[in-house]
Amino acid sequence: MVGLGAVGGFYGARLAVAGHEVHFVARSDAEHVREHGLLVESPDGDIHLRDVSVHRSPETVPDVDVVVLAVKTTDTARAVGLLDGLVGDDTLVLVLQNGLGVEARLADAVPGTVVLGGMCFLCSNKVGPGHIRHLDYGRVTVGEHDPGGAAGRTANVEAVVADLIGAGVAAEIVEHLAAGRWRKLVWNIPYNGLSVVLDAGTDELMADPDTRRLVEALMHEVAAGSGACGHEIEADFIDRMLRDTEAMAPYKTSMKLDHEAGRPLELDAIYAAPIVAAAAAGYAMVRTEALWAQLSFLDRRAQR
Amino acid sequence: MVGLGAVGGFYGARLAVAGHEVHFVARSDAEHVREHGLLVESPDGDIHLRDVSVHRSPETVPDVDVVVLAVKTTDTARAVGLLDGLVGDDTLVLVLQNGLGVEARLADAVPGTVVLGGMCFLCSNKVGPGHIRHLDYGRVTVGEHDPGGAAGRTANVEAVVADLIGAGVAAEIVEHLAAGRWRKLVWNIPYNGLSVVLDAGTDELMADPDTRRLVEALMHEVAAGSGACGHEIEADFIDRMLRDTEAMAPYKTSMKLDHEAGRPLELDAIYAAPIVAAAAAGYAMVRTEALWAQLSFLDRRAQR
Repeated sequence: MVGLGAVGGFYGARLAVAGHEVHFVARSDAEHVREHGLLVESPDGDIHLRDVSVHRSPETVPDVDVVVLAVKTTDTARAVGLLDGLVGDDTLVLVLQNGLGVEARLADAVPGTVVLGGMCFLCSNKVGPGHIRHLDYGRVTVGEHDPGGAAGRTANVEAVVADLIGAGVAAEIVEHLAAGRWRKLVWNIPYNGLSVVLDAGTDELMADPDTRRLVEALMHEVAAGSGACGHEIEADFIDRMLRDTEAMAPYKTSMKLDHEAGRPLELDAIYAAPIVAAAAAGYAMVRTEALWAQLSFLDRRAQR
Repeated sequence: MVGLGAVGGFYGARLAVAGHEVHFVARSDAEHVREHGLLVESPDGDIHLRDVSVHRSPETVPDVDVVVLAVKTTDTARAVGLLDGLVGDDTLVLVLQNGLGVEARLADAVPGTVVLGGMCFLCSNKVGPGHIRHLDYGRVTVGEHDPGGAAGRTANVEAVVADLIGAGVAAEIVEHLAAGRWRKLVWNIPYNGLSVVLDAGTDELMADPDTRRLVEALMHEVAAGSGACGHEIEADFIDRMLRDTEAMAPYKTSMKLDHEAGRPLELDAIYAAPIVAAAAAGYAMVRTEALWAQLSFLDRRAQR
C-alpha cells in the first residue's frame, strides 16, 4: 500500500484486519506508525493496528501480489518513482485515485504490468500521522485498465474485488472503467470545485436555487464531455445524483478538506484531464474550465 | 441628487462647489449631513460642504431642472417612489447607475420624462455618513435614453455634460448609450464578479495566468452578447481594456466594496439584465451565468 493517508490507511487497515499481509510505504509517517501503530476511527468500529509493517522506501518491502497506489494525484510523480522497486513479473497495480487518466499514467510508468483502477466513494480524513477518521461511505468499484479504453471485468479484477469484499469493503466490479471514471466526475467536478470556491458544504450548494442550478448545468456539461468521448450518460443519472446528494448528510468534499489542510488540489486529474479529453473529442466544457481557472487561482495563492 | 453615497456625494459636492443649486435626498444620512456637512476627500483636493440642502423626502425639495438618481440599483425600487415628488413637466432625469436597463426602468416609472444615462468611471467609497473617500478616476459619459435603443447626443445631453465639465468633472457624450453600457459591462462583469468570488484585487486577477484567461474569456462572452444585441464591439477593445487594467493601480471593484461592507450586490443590473438581453437575442452567456450563480449564493449568504 503506497500511501498511508485517508484512503490507504483506511483500506489497508481493513485488509490487514482481514488477515492479508499488508506492507505500507509511507514517506513522512513511517516512524510514527512503527512506534504507535495505525488508528482508524470509524462509525463501523475503530481499528487499531499495533504491529504495522511500514517502510520508508520500497527496498525493504518483500515481494507482493498487488501494489495499491493510494496517494493524492498531486503526489503521483513522486510515487511512480517507487514502483520499480515494488512491481515484479506477476504484480498487479491497483490505482485508488480520483479523476481521469490516472491508470494510463501508471500504465505508462510500468509498461507490461496489469493496471486496475478503483474508484473510492469514501468520506475519510487523515487527522494526524497514523490517525485516520472515517466519516461515511467506503464503497470501491474496480475495473481493469485497457489502453483501448474498454476494460472492465477480468479475472484480476474479480480476485481483487473478492479480497476487498472479504475485508468488509463494499467492492464492486465496474464493467467499463473509463465510463465509470466519467460518471464519478459528474459528481466530483461540481461539488469539489464549488465547495472550495464558495466555502460551502454540499447541503448549502443544494439548498440555494442558483448554485443548485449551476451544479446541474456543470453535471450536464460533464455528461456531454463524457458522451463526446464515447461514454453516454443517461439523463436520469444526473437527476438521481442530485436527489442522492440532497438526501446526504452535509458533506465536505475531498478537495475542500485538502484546501482547508493547505494541501495542493487535485486539479490535473479532476479538471484538466477531462477538459482536455473532451476538447480533443470536439466538446468545450466552458463552465468546467471557468471553475478550473478559479480553483487554480485559489490553489496557487494557498500554496504561496 | 437622490442618494448621498460614493457617487451622489462625490458629483453632488463638485456641482455645489461650482455654484449649482444642489439638493440632496437621503434616507439615513440627512440628519448627520445637515449638522456636520458633507466631506469628500480626494487626491484632487478635499471638499467640505458645510451648508448642505439635504432632505429626507421629496416634498421639501424645491422645483429642480435635473433629478440625478445616484443610488445603488439594489435601491432603485425605493428611489423610484420618490420621483413623483421631484419630477415636473420640464425636469430631466439623469441615472448614474451601473448595469444594463437602468434607464428603461426609470423611463417606465416616469413616462413622458426625458431620461439620460450616465456611466461613472469612478473609484469612490462612502466611509461614513456624509463622508466620501474618492480614490481615483471620476469620468462620466452621458447619453439620452431612447426606448428604441439608439439614443446618444441631444441638446439635453449637451447641457448636462457642459454643467459637469464646468464642475471639473471629466464628462463626455456617449453617442450610443446602450452600446456604451455594454462596453462598460465588458469590464464590470469579469472584474466585479471575480473580485468578490475570489476575494482578489484586479492586480491579482491579472497576475495569475488562469484568472487572466478567464477574465478574457468573460470579456469575449460579454462582447458576443453585446454583438447579439446589435452592438458590435471590436476585438481590439478587449485587448485595450486588459492592457489598461494591467497598468492600473490595484483596484477594489464597487461590488467588492459592497460585499465587504455587507451591502447587497448589484446583480440584477450587472448580471441578470445582460444575460437576459443576450438570451432574448439568441446568445447564451454561460460563463457569466455561472459567475452570476456563484455571486447570488454569496450575496444571499451575506444578507442572511
